[in-house]
Amino acid sequence: MRIIIVGFNAAGLSAAINARKTNLDAEIVVYEKEKYLPYSRCGIPFVISGEVKSFQELMEYPEEFYEKNNIEIHLNCEVTSVDPANKKIHVVKDGTASTDRYDRLILALGGTPRVPPIKGIDKGNVFYVRTITDGEHILKAAKTFEKCAIIGGGMVGLEMADALSKLGVKVTIIDRKTQILPNLLDEDMTRRILPEFSKRGIRLILNGRCTEIIGDKKVQAIKVNDEILPTDFVIISTAVDPNVLLAVKAGIELGELGAIKVNMRMETSIKDIYACGDCVELPDLITGRSSCFQVRTGADSMGAVAGVNAAGGYSVLPAILIVGMLQLFNMQIAHVGYTERQAKQRGIIPIVSIVEGKTKADYYPGAKWIQVKLIFELESTTLIGAQIVGEEGVAMRAIFLSAAMTNKMTASELAKLHIGYTPPLNNHIEPICRAAEAAYDNIKICLLQLPE
Amino acid sequence: MRIIIVGFNAAGLSAAINARKTNLDAEIVVYEKEKYLPYSRCGIPFVISGEVKSFQELMEYPEEFYEKNNIEIHLNCEVTSVDPANKKIHVVKDGTASTDRYDRLILALGGTPRVPPIKGIDKGNVFYVRTITDGEHILKAAKTFEKCAIIGGGMVGLEMADALSKLGVKVTIIDRKTQILPNLLDEDMTRRILPEFSKRGIRLILNGRCTEIIGDKKVQAIKVNDEILPTDFVIISTAVDPNVLLAVKAGIELGELGAIKVNMRMETSIKDIYACGDCVELPDLITGRSSCFQVRTGADSMGAVAGVNAAGGYSVLPAILIVGMLQLFNMQIAHVGYTERQAKQRGIIPIVSIVEGKTKADYYPGAKWIQVKLIFELESTTLIGAQIVGEEGVAMRAIFLSAAMTNKMTASELAKLHIGYTPPLNNHIEPICRAAEAAYDNIKICLLQLPE
Repeated sequence: MRIIIVGFNAAGLSAAINARKTNLDAEIVVYEKEKYLPYSRCGIPFVISGEVKSFQELMEYPEEFYEKNNIEIHLNCEVTSVDPANKKIHVVKDGTASTDRYDRLILALGGTPRVPPIKGIDKGNVFYVRTITDGEHILKAAKTFEKCAIIGGGMVGLEMADALSKLGVKVTIIDRKTQILPNLLDEDMTRRILPEFSKRGIRLILNGRCTEIIGDKKVQAIKVNDEILPTDFVIISTAVDPNVLLAVKAGIELGELGAIKVNMRMETSIKDIYACGDCVELPDLITGRSSCFQVRTGADSMGAVAGVNAAGGYSVLPAILIVGMLQLFNMQIAHVGYTERQAKQRGIIPIVSIVEGKTKADYYPGAKWIQVKLIFELESTTLIGAQIVGEEGVAMRAIFLSAAMTNKMTASELAKLHIGYTPPLNNHIEPICRAAEAAYDNIKICLLQLPE
Repeated sequence: MRIIIVGFNAAGLSAAINARKTNLDAEIVVYEKEKYLPYSRCGIPFVISGEVKSFQELMEYPEEFYEKNNIEIHLNCEVTSVDPANKKIHVVKDGTASTDRYDRLILALGGTPRVPPIKGIDKGNVFYVRTITDGEHILKAAKTFEKCAIIGGGMVGLEMADALSKLGVKVTIIDRKTQILPNLLDEDMTRRILPEFSKRGIRLILNGRCTEIIGDKKVQAIKVNDEILPTDFVIISTAVDPNVLLAVKAGIELGELGAIKVNMRMETSIKDIYACGDCVELPDLITGRSSCFQVRTGADSMGAVAGVNAAGGYSVLPAILIVGMLQLFNMQIAHVGYTERQAKQRGIIPIVSIVEGKTKADYYPGAKWIQVKLIFELESTTLIGAQIVGEEGVAMRAIFLSAAMTNKMTASELAKLHIGYTPPLNNHIEPICRAAEAAYDNIKICLLQLPE
């Protein structure tokens, strides 16, 4: 059995490892267009900030790991087309074309930063944040220049703002929306974060429409809402589009969001072709709505399922639950499932509670604040969304809430969850349980008030 | 409606608050034998260590809180008997007897440190760890004397050893069992903890039987396995017995463990009498076996349910799940559910995995080690036990695993849980998910190997 994997980063890597685990004899062959072995894209902002010493440290495994696992790797290779009828792929490397044949094909094509329709966007010193090469350009610019404009106030944009401000770069963030992190948080949960930008001299322009990048060959300024902002370089971090061209050309069906459609074994519409990672859409766990899950842990899970199945095993991933988290300045931010706004957009009546608490016993030195917002669906009273902002313990609470949401826990179940307690490590009044209790009280009131 | 609560610490406090929340008009009257308003017993070791400045800081609420909530409090009062036929209690305060009448009675009687059958145990400078008064005696001894022997290597004994060693006291811990923390951890999970004792000059004697406390009026030495160990004071922390005398005298039925038997509304066998906290036994969530849940969060939950029901509301607590945690030296330790040994004692075939991982991305500075042991039941493949030892993130993982256990998550469900990821806050390979995956592989192997 010859398994070819196209694309070798998080999803492709997970596919390769799990295919090998499932089938010791399979030929596993990988084609990747970048020059690097798999590395942590999530780590790029932390190399720029200096917290991680070099991009080299982001490498997932040393070369010997792949040799030992008998994974054949072709870097700098562009797979230009797939021929499903003959089970072949066409590859170009350094201008030279070749073909290869597969029994099973795994497409881990990744995504590409979206180029927003801004006049002059192709000028020099306009960067994206996707690859190590991107990171190297940004790091060089940060060490050379003074002022940076970041277009896009999502996770990556804010992480870059944090990193660059640590290097002394004067940062302006521009977002078209009325709030930061619109996919993660409702506006009420951004309020404790906003003052942190100005404290660090970062200018945040919301409702900001960047219409032009001004300069000769290189950026000199940007135009935002008719204001001219001088800047030395620009980072675009607006969205990531799934790479589907290769799949489309091969006749593979796309889903409603325009990403590759797969079943729960990660099989595409064409036999023996699997897909996984940022190029794929899957039902979300809450309402079954199609969703793109472009984060590392999604790539890990999808890649694993694709790899096991392609290698002759059996593994399923029926749905996905969005869990996102970031560290920003001195704060930790996480979300799980739907925001209140997203719930309403889907026709759900959300029951919401926000609670602020402490991460240790109140009297224990070093107790930190933490804020939790929970969102429940009114009829079932099940948890459908959560947002957490705080100074510690945020990531693990998000994972805990992912387990709660996966199991469709109700407000009262969550309020009564058995938790342990010791003063230095947590608070006997867990903010999550207290938020669930508050929501449970709200649910009782709302049910009484509903028109009959 | 007149609600009387006997015992006013964690469970009684929770009962009073929840009764008030449920019923704004009820008379709520409390009798407590100690001289203090409710305080955090869990905090006593941290006042002794100096981390918390005074016992006063352990107070749950200021006096005004109780006034505002119209809770009538009688301290220094011993309730000597209950007369269910006439709905009366008899009280003694400073040698003076009185009676009071109730519509609903809540017994939050707590527990009492067990006095082990050791010769000379009634000598001076032998202390227990239960009340602030106990804590004050120990603190004074720690500042006066050099050497302390702690009898009992459970949570409280170890926390006291940690606290006293921080003050420069020379500590010896003696336990009759072959390992420390036998109710929390299996022996294999204690191995990374053991070297920490000798590093701090703490002597740990396992398989140690203390047969005599030697001295005139006050301790001078103890006899352990025929060795004479000079010591200045002794701390007994072996077990806590439920206070049931008042209940027994009133004719209230006890359970199979000798604690007060209650239904899921915390009603005892006598109408209008409720019980909650350390004096109660309830089914455990895993097999329904009767269990005592003598921790703060258990008292909170049981008290809340008793308070709501006594005040005319409706709330249930069908079962309990044991979750315990402590900070010891630079380590965090937690457990949920059954240990491997406990599972075997209950006739379960446990499938076990132990995994060691990192709390952040491997390349991110400050990533800490963490060790996870998971225990699954073979046929259902559901999680029935978990143990975690590590340098950070342990408590929240225990709460996450409590949610997983409450929802009877299987090994494969837990292995595939959707987690988020950001390098500074967690590892994209979550040790818990990896342990579940390892157990899932073990389960497949074990099912194949079972005799037909």
